[in-house]
Amino acid sequence: MFRFFTAIFFALLWMPASAQSTLTLQEKLGYDKLAKLLIIHADDLGSSQSENAASFYAMENGSVNSGSIMVPCPWFEQVVDYAKTHPRADLGIHLTLNSEWRLYKWGPVSDPGEVKSLLDKNHYFPDNLGHVAEHAKIEEVEKELKAQIQIALDRGIDLTHLDTHMGAMALRPDLMRLYMKLGRDFNLPVMVSKQEWSDFSKTEKDLSENAPVVLENIYVAAPDDYKNGMTSYYTKILQNLKPGVHTILMHTGYDNDEMRSITTGHEAYGAKWRQQDFDFFISDLCKKLLLENRIQLITWGEIKEKLMP
Amino acid sequence: MFRFFTAIFFALLWMPASAQSTLTLQEKLGYDKLAKLLIIHADDLGSSQSENAASFYAMENGSVNSGSIMVPCPWFEQVVDYAKTHPRADLGIHLTLNSEWRLYKWGPVSDPGEVKSLLDKNHYFPDNLGHVAEHAKIEEVEKELKAQIQIALDRGIDLTHLDTHMGAMALRPDLMRLYMKLGRDFNLPVMVSKQEWSDFSKTEKDLSENAPVVLENIYVAAPDDYKNGMTSYYTKILQNLKPGVHTILMHTGYDNDEMRSITTGHEAYGAKWRQQDFDFFISDLCKKLLLENRIQLITWGEIKEKLMP
Repeated sequence: MFRFFTAIFFALLWMPASAQSTLTLQEKLGYDKLAKLLIIHADDLGSSQSENAASFYAMENGSVNSGSIMVPCPWFEQVVDYAKTHPRADLGIHLTLNSEWRLYKWGPVSDPGEVKSLLDKNHYFPDNLGHVAEHAKIEEVEKELKAQIQIALDRGIDLTHLDTHMGAMALRPDLMRLYMKLGRDFNLPVMVSKQEWSDFSKTEKDLSENAPVVLENIYVAAPDDYKNGMTSYYTKILQNLKPGVHTILMHTGYDNDEMRSITTGHEAYGAKWRQQDFDFFISDLCKKLLLENRIQLITWGEIKEKLMP
Repeated sequence: MFRFFTAIFFALLWMPASAQSTLTLQEKLGYDKLAKLLIIHADDLGSSQSENAASFYAMENGSVNSGSIMVPCPWFEQVVDYAKTHPRADLGIHLTLNSEWRLYKWGPVSDPGEVKSLLDKNHYFPDNLGHVAEHAKIEEVEKELKAQIQIALDRGIDLTHLDTHMGAMALRPDLMRLYMKLGRDFNLPVMVSKQEWSDFSKTEKDLSENAPVVLENIYVAAPDDYKNGMTSYYTKILQNLKPGVHTILMHTGYDNDEMRSITTGHEAYGAKWRQQDFDFFISDLCKKLLLENRIQLITWGEIKEKLMP
């Protein structure tokens, strides 16, 4: 199977550029045009013991096949440890500019004095996106995010991609440009959807140097989806997935004392929410839906290997 | 009762200095010379959700009557929150220069670039005391520890004392001098035992400006005490307590997933150890032993109020 895809992949390298540019992402990756490809992606690795334990379990026993790491968080070292013992785990950097919970905090990995525009009054990352949009100086964001990526590389993690915690990098065009630049600087694919790319294109004149891997859809449950039931939400996504490369972003965590304290006062993305993400993505139902709907799982590592070797 | 002690206390203020200097600490505090006074002290507040939740419970429902806070740790904000809603809680600063666990880390509150001698190769506080003894520059220690104290004060915590995480401030005479200086600078009593004071006195010529509140004993369970049973260890301390002002330092925590992960690979001061500390100090047995042995609980707040008004 691998040799078949490899053959298609290398055949593509010989195609004229004009023909390649009309290819879909799935074709560029060596799959059929009608292939339904999906990355099931756990955010927030490193953020807590609960999140780490549940996500590691779901990657090994469930359908979760990728995840991204918050380097500034207290449990980052547990991910470093996991990556060492699980070298095939598909791990990226969840570029972090926010510390969103009230009782449990983190701040920059850079010297705080050098990234003052990224801090709230108590010297943590701010708990809201508005603060980032209004105050973050682009050169300080670059300094901090390069440091986050470099620390993970220095600790021996074989990174496969970059994405953005709470979507902060899509807040302003200059942040979006930096997001793409970080991908180029570190030769890593950057997670961006067609919708985000289209919004960004409206403000950008020259996109030639910013050609990222654009995903068909990035699915994330919203509070209404949670109210209507997560099983129903994820089931519908899997049953109606169109051809293309998609991702579902979610947060596998355990509804335990630690997570309940972390998410105090937040129903959205709270402890019960994360437990339901976990429950669905380790379930037999999820595995059955993937099979029945002929959905193939793909990792960021595979995308990077094929398109950014 | 309060008025009686207050009367004794103010009477002491009128005594000649020579007479005062021969008084025991318990007498200086307005108690009888034969009084057995005890502070039951929970270390490591702020270090984890498990530690916080267990310690708050034990302060409200058990015999724990004092504790100290690790400002650089991820759960510090939960202590800030607790202090706001429990203004009578007796809280000091657990001056922190170490991050002792393998998978769960913290570092300085100062700019790391300005306290480089306090960091390990991954920019956390080191996991061992040897690193502090060998590398910590005294001016960087002062900068960092003043910042830790000031942050707690700025966040509105009415501090009652200072003590030292893992005993790091007793590692070198210059650290011990700084420990005393921080107490003077912030007008807070500093936790030190007769044994520590005696050791320190051997290297110090002039102790006149360093007159702290010296405790008769600081009791901390050692690995052998844990092996022989914590109930037995604490019972013996309470049954054999001599007149004077003493403290028992311990670590109330829950033996749950978070604490087991934090203390991975450490039996000493591990999850089961902390659960046993919790179990004893919320027990009726502990309350009964205090009563039977006529032990009076005293807080650092009372000591500060009477001796450093």
